[in-house]
Amino acid sequence: MAVYTDITDDELATLLADFDLGAATSFKGIAEGVENSNFLLETETGRYFLTVYEKRVREADLPFFLGLMQWLEQHGFPSARPIPDRNGEILKRMRGKPCALVSFLTGLSVRRPSVAHCREAGVSLAALHLAAAGFPLGRENDLGQTAWAPMFASLKSAADGLKPGLAATIDADLADLAARWPTGLPSGVVHADYFPDNVFFQAGKFSAAFDFYFACVDALAYDVAVALNAWCFEPDGSFNITSARALVAGYESQRPLSQAERAALPVLAHGAAMRFFLTRLHDWGATPAGALVRPKDPLEYERKLAVHRSSPDLVLFGAAG
Amino acid sequence: MAVYTDITDDELATLLADFDLGAATSFKGIAEGVENSNFLLETETGRYFLTVYEKRVREADLPFFLGLMQWLEQHGFPSARPIPDRNGEILKRMRGKPCALVSFLTGLSVRRPSVAHCREAGVSLAALHLAAAGFPLGRENDLGQTAWAPMFASLKSAADGLKPGLAATIDADLADLAARWPTGLPSGVVHADYFPDNVFFQAGKFSAAFDFYFACVDALAYDVAVALNAWCFEPDGSFNITSARALVAGYESQRPLSQAERAALPVLAHGAAMRFFLTRLHDWGATPAGALVRPKDPLEYERKLAVHRSSPDLVLFGAAG
Repeated sequence: MAVYTDITDDELATLLADFDLGAATSFKGIAEGVENSNFLLETETGRYFLTVYEKRVREADLPFFLGLMQWLEQHGFPSARPIPDRNGEILKRMRGKPCALVSFLTGLSVRRPSVAHCREAGVSLAALHLAAAGFPLGRENDLGQTAWAPMFASLKSAADGLKPGLAATIDADLADLAARWPTGLPSGVVHADYFPDNVFFQAGKFSAAFDFYFACVDALAYDVAVALNAWCFEPDGSFNITSARALVAGYESQRPLSQAERAALPVLAHGAAMRFFLTRLHDWGATPAGALVRPKDPLEYERKLAVHRSSPDLVLFGAAG
Repeated sequence: MAVYTDITDDELATLLADFDLGAATSFKGIAEGVENSNFLLETETGRYFLTVYEKRVREADLPFFLGLMQWLEQHGFPSARPIPDRNGEILKRMRGKPCALVSFLTGLSVRRPSVAHCREAGVSLAALHLAAAGFPLGRENDLGQTAWAPMFASLKSAADGLKPGLAATIDADLADLAARWPTGLPSGVVHADYFPDNVFFQAGKFSAAFDFYFACVDALAYDVAVALNAWCFEPDGSFNITSARALVAGYESQRPLSQAERAALPVLAHGAAMRFFLTRLHDWGATPAGALVRPKDPLEYERKLAVHRSSPDLVLFGAAG
């Protein structure tokens, strides 16, 4: 949750002067989104979401992210639609920072996904993959497998500070993941952060997905692995096989996995847990003082890593359903 | 700006089950309000604001605050209306904390009030005082003049840390204020925190006031003094006489000040600057780590204190207009 950039009424009026949306009638900073500053904007014509992109999002990546959102919306996937100004520009600036207006999405995120929610998550993730097929822009996964060992190099003492001996365990994990990381799986645009807080439901049904700011081109099954970690663990740290089966079955109802993809799910899930463990470990010590961000606990993902390490085929039970 | 309490979709559904507002369709934590956690809630029937009251608000005071909001709304002053549940209850609980739903207000706060905004601020503040007349509940001003010296007793080293020698200056101010503090002025319900960020405008006109969580019974002219400090200083620290005249003239267009009230404005403004200096000084060092609050700079009010100290009749130029 974050509002890093403070926008005045005058700055907002200056931005809106470029659009045909009427004057602002309400404007509120939202405690949502870790990477950017987000505002709920109401004008005489409707409701919108204003995102001001902060340092962590590379400006060069914004055409990919905003283009993808536009593409998905045009291809029937419910996500926020970027609003072009009078000159057709989507990427705007405020206070020297890039920003964009997108359509407002209704819906609520679920805190504790049920089995039915997990199925919806799988169905919608496959729908996202299918809708994104053909999107012409590309972006490498800069938090992919090859990035993890270099990233961990500067975090070893942080890991041992979190839990004595953890650095050596992670080093062994990284070597194992490097040796077993699959290649040649079907690839395409992945969300790469398909967590319950990036998905809205209405009346128990998937209604929209958002926060595409980690999207990139990678193995499609990696996205399923990220989602298995994010949706199918219980608060006590145990992996819920029933939820996992529902998520994979939901996914396969739209896009069946190949044999190679199914076989790769355990190592992909182990790697996906590593990716979130590493960024949380990094953020744990590095959150700027004035940021109004509560960093997420890296230990949650350390426990998920342990589950994948000790039961390397566990997620296959999900796939086997 | 704050969201101290994290509300899940399940907890929200439990709360809404007591109301006739339909199911939630959108729910967002708002970076607004320093004292409480605030959420924008949309249901099938409309938009509402949910406030969860945190430690700093005494639960025993909530009937006064919520009753006042209800009274003001019923007496024609535009402010948020508390929403009763099916049993007529306004004060509810979530996570063991008191909370309340109020109607959603549209409008924007101004960051840099113009002279015209200051006039509107004065008009609306007098309208608030007139609408509140007759409200049957009372609440002492626990941040009033008699509270300042005891409060400062534990903040002397913080003051000297902010600016060497400041503690002695504040001690002298406090003695001076105690000696000159007026009694017997017309009293009634005051907002006590009538700052630009607690007032909404639409198309340049006052549209609503909110955040009544410092409201109490005190000298009505003290509220004018708080507003003069909050609305009529320039970013460079100078007092804008034109804005002050507009604010006082606006106020007097609805409720003329007595001679005693006019004469008391300078010392009331000096005291009002002391009250905000002291609470900001306190908060500067005392903000809890996970609070997502950016404390307000006490030096802004230290500079206002210095203006009132060196030009004790300055605000009279506002009143003289």
